[in-house]
Amino acid sequence: MRFHDFIHDSEGWRLVGDEVLFANPYLEVHRVQIATPTRPVPLTWTVAHRKGAVVVVPVTVDGKYLLVRQERIPIRATIWEFPAGQIDDANDPDAVRATGLRELHEEAGHELSTNGELTSLGIFFPSSGFTDEHSHLLLARGVIPAEGGAQPDAAEAITECRAFSLAELTAMVASGEIRDANSLAAYARMSALGLMNP
Amino acid sequence: MRFHDFIHDSEGWRLVGDEVLFANPYLEVHRVQIATPTRPVPLTWTVAHRKGAVVVVPVTVDGKYLLVRQERIPIRATIWEFPAGQIDDANDPDAVRATGLRELHEEAGHELSTNGELTSLGIFFPSSGFTDEHSHLLLARGVIPAEGGAQPDAAEAITECRAFSLAELTAMVASGEIRDANSLAAYARMSALGLMNP
Repeated sequence: MRFHDFIHDSEGWRLVGDEVLFANPYLEVHRVQIATPTRPVPLTWTVAHRKGAVVVVPVTVDGKYLLVRQERIPIRATIWEFPAGQIDDANDPDAVRATGLRELHEEAGHELSTNGELTSLGIFFPSSGFTDEHSHLLLARGVIPAEGGAQPDAAEAITECRAFSLAELTAMVASGEIRDANSLAAYARMSALGLMNP
Repeated sequence: MRFHDFIHDSEGWRLVGDEVLFANPYLEVHRVQIATPTRPVPLTWTVAHRKGAVVVVPVTVDGKYLLVRQERIPIRATIWEFPAGQIDDANDPDAVRATGLRELHEEAGHELSTNGELTSLGIFFPSSGFTDEHSHLLLARGVIPAEGGAQPDAAEAITECRAFSLAELTAMVASGEIRDANSLAAYARMSALGLMNP
């Protein structure tokens, strides 16, 4: 698995050892020896290396938010969340946009309308002490139903896609019903950017 | 590593196989065979098993938010975030509160004042397709400097702790400077709950 572009020696960070302890197509566990800006004597750390991902916040032409309900095996729960997926080809300069639009179609059965727009809400790190996994957040305003509807990946189980008003979305974040980092990080950015005023 | 209480067979979830592929004190990688509510024929999934954690949002008696700046080895960056730490003793019924207060003291050098209060903002899952890691979010209102100041863990490198106004915190979330799931999830919940009105 290729390392991400932001992982390199600079400004006091210096990798002096890197051993792969475990690897399969989804995950590599590395034991790294690394010097940090405040710790010039290298220390040992366990790092889980994962593909990057894209989260897309679909907003319909009438201002509703689309959420999908997905079975999540590690937590044994079926939860409401914004569509998301991993970046398969990190060499493609258009990978973030392409992955966002792919998941919008596959998981939510929607696509950007002619007047629709895709806006970056930046990136975030799900668990920065443990993994280099990171997710790009995209806001897709002006989405419409796509021909053919949703086309879920065989390895996933999305049981439903539904449109929610801003008030409903906010109530689900407040109550804890929305509880995945992807959706909460997107909500935080939209809130801080003032993009969710009714 | 003990499995978390929310991981059990119920409502169509049924674990039929569980093989540990890798284990060290920080991480266990399991290959599980599991039936889900919509997929009665068991499928195979890679699950990273991790300890639970607690994130604490310290608000000073004058309404400022404390952030710590921490070196994060997997992403090779030093970032501003709310104090957080793993739950070491999952059998302790007071573990969430105790871990939150411990991190408030160790990382931010603060403690709850006599009139201070600790409020749960629920939990979230950093990467629910990959790991059972979960974080409890606590709001600590009314914190004051603790005797002796911060007492950072030897394995961590916290370079600074500083108080930020709500406007500053919001600008850091909006710009992407705050980019860890812990802090963004806490911000989303506080925003949705209307706890951040100036």
